[in-house]
Amino acid sequence: MTAVLTERTPRVAAARKLLRRASRLEAGRFLVEGVRPVHDALTWAEEGPGRVHDLFLTDAVADRDPTLEDRAIAAGVRVARVTEKAAAGLSDTVTPQGVAVVCSTVTVGLDAALGEHPRLVTVLAGVADPGNAGTVIRTSDAAGADAVVLAGDSRNQPVDPHNGKCVRATMGSLFHLPLAVARDVDAVVAALRERGLTLLAAAGDGETVLDASADPLLAAPTAWLFGSEAHGLDDDTTRLADHRVRVPIHGRAESLNLATAAAVCLYASARAHH
Amino acid sequence: MTAVLTERTPRVAAARKLLRRASRLEAGRFLVEGVRPVHDALTWAEEGPGRVHDLFLTDAVADRDPTLEDRAIAAGVRVARVTEKAAAGLSDTVTPQGVAVVCSTVTVGLDAALGEHPRLVTVLAGVADPGNAGTVIRTSDAAGADAVVLAGDSRNQPVDPHNGKCVRATMGSLFHLPLAVARDVDAVVAALRERGLTLLAAAGDGETVLDASADPLLAAPTAWLFGSEAHGLDDDTTRLADHRVRVPIHGRAESLNLATAAAVCLYASARAHH
Repeated sequence: MTAVLTERTPRVAAARKLLRRASRLEAGRFLVEGVRPVHDALTWAEEGPGRVHDLFLTDAVADRDPTLEDRAIAAGVRVARVTEKAAAGLSDTVTPQGVAVVCSTVTVGLDAALGEHPRLVTVLAGVADPGNAGTVIRTSDAAGADAVVLAGDSRNQPVDPHNGKCVRATMGSLFHLPLAVARDVDAVVAALRERGLTLLAAAGDGETVLDASADPLLAAPTAWLFGSEAHGLDDDTTRLADHRVRVPIHGRAESLNLATAAAVCLYASARAHH
Repeated sequence: MTAVLTERTPRVAAARKLLRRASRLEAGRFLVEGVRPVHDALTWAEEGPGRVHDLFLTDAVADRDPTLEDRAIAAGVRVARVTEKAAAGLSDTVTPQGVAVVCSTVTVGLDAALGEHPRLVTVLAGVADPGNAGTVIRTSDAAGADAVVLAGDSRNQPVDPHNGKCVRATMGSLFHLPLAVARDVDAVVAALRERGLTLLAAAGDGETVLDASADPLLAAPTAWLFGSEAHGLDDDTTRLADHRVRVPIHGRAESLNLATAAAVCLYASARAHH
């Protein structure tokens, strides 16, 4: 057995820095922690070389789940045992699980993410909460979306999908479909238009109601635009869409939250497409 | 202006105890905090006498939003100014807003909640996270459900909808539709059967797929059963349902989270009913 690394070991210290957005951007790497998410990352590593660089785990985790080290080694990932304290330092949760991997960032350029003929694309414009973004990435994956684009708006910069909270909320979907980050929503809209997509803006006061009457509209290749939790889509972004669509409210609720509204919209498209 | 109450004033100290579930059960009262939620509670107070008992607010909040005191007084709610510290003590958030009301608990008996001819009912069986429960209550309201029942299962006792996190997640829907808490899911199922409802269990491995082919099934009056975040519905509960229904997964996600799955299911019913 090789030495157990502490939080002061340069490799561990370098990995720890990836908890910060600026360091992730600079390094082009991010951290994935927890047994289940690390397994998701290792599956991703098996599908393409050089995607996952380091596995750090405590003796206790290695004893409990020997497949972690086995899979990592088979996928060409460097493996190191670390102290409990070092493992905790690689976590931004209150209950660190004692295992983390350093991965290359998953995002690709906008054109690469969209491909040539996307049928269903999710655009988050100004969504600020990483947990919400992660949940919508997971739902987009489940609904069969071809890509998710994280864009900024006039108020918020795009959320970083490599944020720990976002990674956890995606439950592995981060590795399943192409993601792009784009500061400028206008460029995103242009790229979607180029591909002939119908642009639907989710808006609580939209003129188009998302019920059976919307089925013909939904049958076309579609990009959904979702705005921030607090303010929805800003006016400039909404104006770029072909239709402003509202999920009907049958009771007395004022609105749905972002993740549930997105689930209803994306599954309405999935229903129309399948 | 009357005296400003501190955290040691008996009324404030009594209200503070309502942050604990046992105290809420004993008193039949709960706390609602924050400007927007308090306004929702005051609307509820206006619709029925004796529902809201005390409004506690800081001078700063009263200055910023004078309608809070005006509405409370008009609705027969006792009003008291409190210190910032006292207001913070009535909050279970990290950023207390300086305003809270003491309300009578909103839950009613199972038969009262269901009424005679419900068309759409949500049953949460063993859901443990108050935030998830609150989100599903909000979505149920939006989808036009007639009632939400919070039931236990073999692993978890029912969540208390008066928990602060749940109250916030409902965004006022707590006050919009009848809620019942029932320890025993068998009794809930019996009450649903008595009313002729079709029982649909949401299950990731269900035989019935929630796509257009399910429309005839969904047209009937329906109760949806949703299980816990971690384990889904337990086998005993699932066996009580008429159909095990799965939201189709078109991509590579393993599942949806509870709140998004519930949104897709409830809106599929809403679509079939409207």
